[in-house]
Amino acid sequence: MERKLPNLIPGADLTGSRIEQLSTPIPVIDEDRLAANIARVQAYMDGQGKAFRPHIKTHKVPALAEQQVAAGAKGINCQKVTEAEIFADAGFDDILITFNILGPEKLERLVALNEQISGLKVAADNDVTVRGLSEAFASASRPLVVLVECDTGGGRCGVQSPEAAQALAEAIVAAPSLTFGGLLTYPKAFSEEAVEVFFSSTLKLLEGKGIACPVVSNGGTPSLFEAGKVTSATEHRAGTYIYNDRAMVRSGHCSYDDCAMHILATVVSRPTEDRAVTDAGSKALTSDLLGFDDFGYVVDYPDAVITGLSEEHGVLDLSKCAPDARPQIGERIRIIPNHTCVVSNLVDHMVFHRNGVVTRVEAVAARGRVW
Amino acid sequence: MERKLPNLIPGADLTGSRIEQLSTPIPVIDEDRLAANIARVQAYMDGQGKAFRPHIKTHKVPALAEQQVAAGAKGINCQKVTEAEIFADAGFDDILITFNILGPEKLERLVALNEQISGLKVAADNDVTVRGLSEAFASASRPLVVLVECDTGGGRCGVQSPEAAQALAEAIVAAPSLTFGGLLTYPKAFSEEAVEVFFSSTLKLLEGKGIACPVVSNGGTPSLFEAGKVTSATEHRAGTYIYNDRAMVRSGHCSYDDCAMHILATVVSRPTEDRAVTDAGSKALTSDLLGFDDFGYVVDYPDAVITGLSEEHGVLDLSKCAPDARPQIGERIRIIPNHTCVVSNLVDHMVFHRNGVVTRVEAVAARGRVW
Repeated sequence: MERKLPNLIPGADLTGSRIEQLSTPIPVIDEDRLAANIARVQAYMDGQGKAFRPHIKTHKVPALAEQQVAAGAKGINCQKVTEAEIFADAGFDDILITFNILGPEKLERLVALNEQISGLKVAADNDVTVRGLSEAFASASRPLVVLVECDTGGGRCGVQSPEAAQALAEAIVAAPSLTFGGLLTYPKAFSEEAVEVFFSSTLKLLEGKGIACPVVSNGGTPSLFEAGKVTSATEHRAGTYIYNDRAMVRSGHCSYDDCAMHILATVVSRPTEDRAVTDAGSKALTSDLLGFDDFGYVVDYPDAVITGLSEEHGVLDLSKCAPDARPQIGERIRIIPNHTCVVSNLVDHMVFHRNGVVTRVEAVAARGRVW
Repeated sequence: MERKLPNLIPGADLTGSRIEQLSTPIPVIDEDRLAANIARVQAYMDGQGKAFRPHIKTHKVPALAEQQVAAGAKGINCQKVTEAEIFADAGFDDILITFNILGPEKLERLVALNEQISGLKVAADNDVTVRGLSEAFASASRPLVVLVECDTGGGRCGVQSPEAAQALAEAIVAAPSLTFGGLLTYPKAFSEEAVEVFFSSTLKLLEGKGIACPVVSNGGTPSLFEAGKVTSATEHRAGTYIYNDRAMVRSGHCSYDDCAMHILATVVSRPTEDRAVTDAGSKALTSDLLGFDDFGYVVDYPDAVITGLSEEHGVLDLSKCAPDARPQIGERIRIIPNHTCVVSNLVDHMVFHRNGVVTRVEAVAARGRVW
């Protein structure tokens, strides 16, 4: 028996519907907020004279990357070869993959991708990765551009010192099949000073060795509007800013009114005076806490606290809501998730609207690229 | 440009490969552990004289539900209409949806599903849901079977007292388009006594009203082997037991050797002596904590702690590992996730193996049924 997915009739069928008619739980994106987020960040980067490279992880939708590039973005940032393939096939050429690519299958696909597009770049923070890239590209028709990832305090990947960055840059320069592309970091938010010290120290060392550093790439949305303080950075990468989320509001990057993604949910149970249960569980909101104690901001009931999630249930504590202002069974509520990027990875299609009227349904083309 | 998904060539292409050849991160399922988990739980339920109804949320794969039914399961448990549709289309007839179904689109689909299969049942814990079901089925060709969900201490959905359960059962009995199907609960683990008190008290009230209660359905994996203590229950529902996970080990339900799902990951960076970074982030493990402080159990390095996840990175603290026994860059490690059910929802295909040799690749057919 062939069935249409609920509410997922892309294009004409759904366009023009009211979002109130959509079956819940469902994330929806406000077109005007989306456009304003793109424009505001691009204008800031333009004003700082920095190239801007949006990270597609937040939306995973080629049409949105096209909007970002149309606004002035220099290229895009992916995290996986399999994501980059989707965007290369969609016509993007300037793609930076900010990840250590290891293993025969990924390297084989990377070589093929580098034949397809001329603007491919990857990151490395260790010798093993550089050796693997060097060997994989030994007989490639053009060298692969490799940037050195620096840990400027973020505590994830990255070489630990300017000296180590220099050494790895030298290894890349020495590999005939590779080209040194520059430096990059995914920093701790609001640590612009530390980032600048790391970058400028490394640049000095590279200059001493006569190694040109075409790109110095900083990143992150939370303190994006401080990016100008990293004077040595030539570009900035950010993903979350396009949709924004509760964590970005907390960081001061934006307000709730700048959050383009709402999760529409329905109250399905009111077991007690103080408890509501919605159909938005971890399959709709994800269990990302990002430092919060609860699982999202309830726009319509700001005093409600989403205390627990199972896959298909969200449990709300209403005890701080006034007794006469609590959601009823069947009522629809809007939730701003803690983290939008992970929500995008849960849905095959994303619904966009303007003032509550559906404007388009986009396939989340790079969703589910787990590998 | 048409590309195959990495490692996702269902059937012959991948069957016979070693799982070490798969690109990471990737969840894989051990066939023997899977079969043993199915057999062990079914044998326990058979021994207790209770019907067993596996929850498909854990695997979302019709072929696995077929294994569960072949072992003796009575029927299956879904959480959404859109999941139940997948399994009805795959030939399953006895399907219980343990959720309050609300809203015109879901009700319309539910009516169609009840025409398709004769063994459909749903849950309700409130009058609004019962009225909606009653109206939606007013002109249906057969009545819908509705069970009353009881909150026996789980703190999610459910009526709060035997008296409330009786009242809702009476409302269902009074609705011409509905049939009262019994009671169900999703209990707090290890609260069998409270469940039994709630159920037996309600049964007494129903008996007093002359209302027959064909099914009394208990649920959950963590204290599943205590299910015999709920003497009034006629059936038990459970999902996680088929794969098991770190949370089930903690509950005492199983050992690590009973965990059928491993996430294969690659160490991509060793920025410091005490830090490793793998490619298994929240897109592979999910950020479900389930009461843990960290994000999974590293089988090969039990003293390593997965302290943080971003979408594509897992950060491991190695400080408790012996200095000469720490994972190297490029090394592959196995992780038992905190929660398997949510991992299944991230992948389009699941890979199965026996002793490391791929046996089959199954589409996770009911994945992504967000709505």
